[in-house]
Amino acid sequence: MSAPVADLYQEVQQFYADQMRLLDDGAVAEWAQTFTEDGVFAANAHPEPIRGRVAIEAGARAAAEELARTGVRRRHWLGMVSVRPGTDDSSLAVDSYALVIATPRDGKPTLHASTSCVDDLVRDGDGWLVRHRRVTRDDLA
Amino acid sequence: MSAPVADLYQEVQQFYADQMRLLDDGAVAEWAQTFTEDGVFAANAHPEPIRGRVAIEAGARAAAEELARTGVRRRHWLGMVSVRPGTDDSSLAVDSYALVIATPRDGKPTLHASTSCVDDLVRDGDGWLVRHRRVTRDDLA
Amino acid sequence: MSAPVADLYQEVQQFYADQMRLLDDGAVAEWAQTFTEDGVFAANAHPEPIRGRVAIEAGARAAAEELARTGVRRRHWLGMVSVRPGTDDSSLAVDSYALVIATPRDGKPTLHASTSCVDDLVRDGDGWLVRHRRVTRDDLA
Repeated sequence: MSAPVADLYQEVQQFYADQMRLLDDGAVAEWAQTFTEDGVFAANAHPEPIRGRVAIEAGARAAAEELARTGVRRRHWLGMVSVRPGTDDSSLAVDSYALVIATPRDGKPTLHASTSCVDDLVRDGDGWLVRHRRVTRDDLA
Repeated sequence: MSAPVADLYQEVQQFYADQMRLLDDGAVAEWAQTFTEDGVFAANAHPEPIRGRVAIEAGARAAAEELARTGVRRRHWLGMVSVRPGTDDSSLAVDSYALVIATPRDGKPTLHASTSCVDDLVRDGDGWLVRHRRVTRDDLA
Repeated sequence: MSAPVADLYQEVQQFYADQMRLLDDGAVAEWAQTFTEDGVFAANAHPEPIRGRVAIEAGARAAAEELARTGVRRRHWLGMVSVRPGTDDSSLAVDSYALVIATPRDGKPTLHASTSCVDDLVRDGDGWLVRHRRVTRDDLA
């Protein structure tokens, strides 16, 4: 990767760590704010892409409430991050793998899903926002 | 994160890689040296925090001997690292996720535990030491 | 780690992300190109080390075909990366942990293997190549 992009690698890693922690902690409004206003979340597990922060927050809220109801803790692990220049000067194309770990109260953790993720990230001040995310679950691929 | 802290991100990742390898390799005396002399290891799986290197080493030794006796290999994976300025100029506040993978001899690996970890790291020469660690197991949270 | 080596940490992480994605995507010719011409892949799961790109590609191709036939998706996760100066100025000694996650079509992911990995990486233009890799599966160790 080119040097300027290499400098951003740890920044992207920290962005993902913070973003996923918001989701896993049920902070769904703050999670939605890590997407652009018109951000798109596409997944092969969904019939249609989810479009915009409002819909992204609503989807995350429904999932968080279901987890709270059933007493299951989910953690999203992103790893194997590969950062490349994006389609314009202020964006990055990032490939990653993502695992979802589920732990029931008083139970053993299991691998809920193994996925790959392709992000289009855009600059937002000194941070980043997701403009487009595509998640591909391995079991459905 | 601010730029000076961003520079430390990879340093923290390598610190964790080296620290966990010591534990997983049964090098419990060297593991204890990665905490400050009065370092604290608190966990929701323990009734009381473990205080000081001597006690941290003793706890790790007991666990290592039990694993050796039963022929189980454990690996601690830290990931989703988020680094922030600490409570003073020479410290860092670090959030992470940690998985414990257990593999019996001639058997399949399993997820032994899914946890989150909050560290207070302090400068020690050109490296780091853990002054305070709090580990929260998801199944007990 | 010394400062010049620290600068390479994120470069090594990205190299592994890209290298493993090639393998997991079945791009076995490109995967073999991430080793030196005379690269060695040694593993405690193999009776003998695999020597040279041609043999490395052949081994990966056989494994990829078997996975395609059975409809299983494998992902190799490297983590807990520790980078040190290598045996000469243009090489790095890298320790890591590696997990293999296997997901059958329409099934749940499982931990196929937990391993540790020791690499001798050498400079190749602005990238890296594996000159020697030794993988130790925890269940056979």
